[in-house]
Amino acid sequence: MQFLTSPTEKKTLEISDLLDPQLLGEEVCVTGAIHTIRDMGTVAFVILRKREGLLQCVYEESAADFPIKELKEADTVKAYGTLAASEKAPGGIEIHLKRVTVLSRPAAPLPIPIAKAKMNISLETSLDLRPVSLRNIRERARFRIQEGIVRGFRDYLTEQGFTEIHTPKIGAKGAEGGANIFKLDYFHHPAVLAQSPQFYKQMMVGVFDRVFETAPVFRAEKHNTKRHLNEYTSLDFEMGYIDGFEDVMAMETGVLGRVMEILKRDYGRELSLLSITLPDVTRIPYVRFDEAKRLVSEKYNRPIRNPYDLEPEEEALIGRYFQEECGSDFVFVTHYPSKKRPFYAMDDPTDSTYTLSFDCLYKGMEITTGGQRIHDYNMLLEKIERRGMTTEGMEHYLMAFKYGLPPHGGLGIGLERFTMKLVGDDNVRRTTLFPRDMSRLEP
Amino acid sequence: MQFLTSPTEKKTLEISDLLDPQLLGEEVCVTGAIHTIRDMGTVAFVILRKREGLLQCVYEESAADFPIKELKEADTVKAYGTLAASEKAPGGIEIHLKRVTVLSRPAAPLPIPIAKAKMNISLETSLDLRPVSLRNIRERARFRIQEGIVRGFRDYLTEQGFTEIHTPKIGAKGAEGGANIFKLDYFHHPAVLAQSPQFYKQMMVGVFDRVFETAPVFRAEKHNTKRHLNEYTSLDFEMGYIDGFEDVMAMETGVLGRVMEILKRDYGRELSLLSITLPDVTRIPYVRFDEAKRLVSEKYNRPIRNPYDLEPEEEALIGRYFQEECGSDFVFVTHYPSKKRPFYAMDDPTDSTYTLSFDCLYKGMEITTGGQRIHDYNMLLEKIERRGMTTEGMEHYLMAFKYGLPPHGGLGIGLERFTMKLVGDDNVRRTTLFPRDMSRLEP
Repeated sequence: MQFLTSPTEKKTLEISDLLDPQLLGEEVCVTGAIHTIRDMGTVAFVILRKREGLLQCVYEESAADFPIKELKEADTVKAYGTLAASEKAPGGIEIHLKRVTVLSRPAAPLPIPIAKAKMNISLETSLDLRPVSLRNIRERARFRIQEGIVRGFRDYLTEQGFTEIHTPKIGAKGAEGGANIFKLDYFHHPAVLAQSPQFYKQMMVGVFDRVFETAPVFRAEKHNTKRHLNEYTSLDFEMGYIDGFEDVMAMETGVLGRVMEILKRDYGRELSLLSITLPDVTRIPYVRFDEAKRLVSEKYNRPIRNPYDLEPEEEALIGRYFQEECGSDFVFVTHYPSKKRPFYAMDDPTDSTYTLSFDCLYKGMEITTGGQRIHDYNMLLEKIERRGMTTEGMEHYLMAFKYGLPPHGGLGIGLERFTMKLVGDDNVRRTTLFPRDMSRLEP
Repeated sequence: MQFLTSPTEKKTLEISDLLDPQLLGEEVCVTGAIHTIRDMGTVAFVILRKREGLLQCVYEESAADFPIKELKEADTVKAYGTLAASEKAPGGIEIHLKRVTVLSRPAAPLPIPIAKAKMNISLETSLDLRPVSLRNIRERARFRIQEGIVRGFRDYLTEQGFTEIHTPKIGAKGAEGGANIFKLDYFHHPAVLAQSPQFYKQMMVGVFDRVFETAPVFRAEKHNTKRHLNEYTSLDFEMGYIDGFEDVMAMETGVLGRVMEILKRDYGRELSLLSITLPDVTRIPYVRFDEAKRLVSEKYNRPIRNPYDLEPEEEALIGRYFQEECGSDFVFVTHYPSKKRPFYAMDDPTDSTYTLSFDCLYKGMEITTGGQRIHDYNMLLEKIERRGMTTEGMEHYLMAFKYGLPPHGGLGIGLERFTMKLVGDDNVRRTTLFPRDMSRLEP
């Protein structure tokens, strides 16, 4: 009988392996895609693109058993050679090639110069050619940063006693109602795609107290802006037994701290490649919604047009204000008007025109919406009635309240938007692998 | 200016905190839902359900400042009292109550006896009452185990140099074609829900070499069996620069090892509650598809009816065979017939009626499908043509190959099905928080 075991020895080495000084002078084997070839006659520099970065290989006719002409850009190869120190090479190492096996060869030359630091192509072209444009090392670095954000989110919450959940994306009714819902036919029943895991994560507070989910959400919003997507990844959590919505903001502060820690520890290459300076998140200012409006209106001489919502320009000014006044890229804006928040938001008992809710702005843009929720069954029914809504289709959601839920609150973070602000992009499509907007369903 | 920082001191304690012997005799504060009250006159036992398990609180009229009648089952409370050792209590500790604040009270008595070890309700009732039935500590334990599986998957792959990706679930065309696709209207364009991240993860091999995703997939299959769902969580990975599909199976073996390690380390409570013995996965047997068919046909005296596919009963017998012959709950069945595998599967160069692919069976049921993929552009085009398929709608997928992809392979694990077999359930709906099947869209 034959058996498999887990992979033990590494057959080929990655860049981090090669940085071991003990390997200098040894013959090593590496794989990679040929990023560039600079042929200078008897010597050529063959740059391999590997998942951890670029690796310089040096070809000398006398040392190698193959002609350099056998290699083409975008070939994927397995290369054997001697590891050497080299001050000018990326990472201070290079490989003196002896032998190369070509593993695959493209069928056509690359349509865009992916080896250039800046490809100088439009966003549209970059998205149309996504399977190729993402091979550019700066393009792909964004998504390593994105990975770090998700890792920080999960890591911190797991440590804080949260349980990860997986809730359905197809359902009978949307969590927040409204028109912005994708509809589909589900075995001859009308169904919708989840706009958020809101109802489910609240139900799960009754089961695990603290839950989180990192999953796609779908919004049929007819926006075509630089910060909206019709499908995005939402980092959601919900926590029970809170004393107030400040507990939720404190938890987000903890999440952000862990995100920055993990990025600093494990994603130094990408931070440096994209020239990112990580923000300080040890303490984050908070301010009431109406107070924030007043502050920026006064400081920047701007009339308050809509007292119930923040316009994008106002959000930007609030971000600027707290950067200027206390050097923070982040600010929590609290106590949003009740009429702009969903029915399940807990109204402020001292003034029910406001809610115990918040947004987190990062560099002047909302990346999080959260708050305390109503947990009392009758209070929830009353609010639904007061809003002229129906409970139809909410029976299971209401069931959780009917049989008891603790005080709770939570939030949702838009992953792509957070990534966008962190890497300093100006369009959320740049930090989405394969974005979906009103006019883009492919690739 | 006011600031928030991450949560520092714990205001209320969890069971694992209370196990610290230094706290014995101290006054502590805990929160929880009242699971049961056993009132014996002047003494009562109030069992709190907390996320880590059950906690016994003892009420004595003389010591507490409230009458026991003030507490009701399913209340959520904040309780203060003295921590004491108690041999008979769960975890060997109990709290002698002094003061209790009721945080919330249900609007109606519970419809099912969630405090009983076995609720004796049908699966249908359990699913209809999901927000409540999941509060049963054995029901919810399944989903802690499920969390451990996902953590093991991500943890191991991250360590092995994989990058986590998030690919769109709405698209213009399904990855594997066929009729089993949910369709929707996307701003007046026809769109479908992703059956798998197959195309995207292959494209991303050209970017990061190794990628994984843990996300929902959607299959409009008209099955109504104990092992099919119409929406499930797929644990997918794809890896480049493989020497053969054995590398993919070895990686899965590593994943399974890490899963068991993490379950053993962090989920002991749940394993014990559900009486789960973790399987040994240090080595997993593998066998060719045709050989497996022959072995079970001979040993169990069963004629081979369909030489191209495994019937569920045959899978069960293969599972039994390898359990009996080498004590393994897992077995890789390799070299599935080409005609039963998707077009992108790499055919065996020594006999193209078979593929370099595999399924992983666990206790006689398929939980993983994987294999090596075609990486050469022209070979892929030829196979598409040979199958009489069209490349329409696959332009972006094919683009990745046209501009070069290394040899690669990967797999997908059905999370709910894996959980079902691990906890010993017989219906995949039991290990799905909110299952979706042909007749169930709610809750």
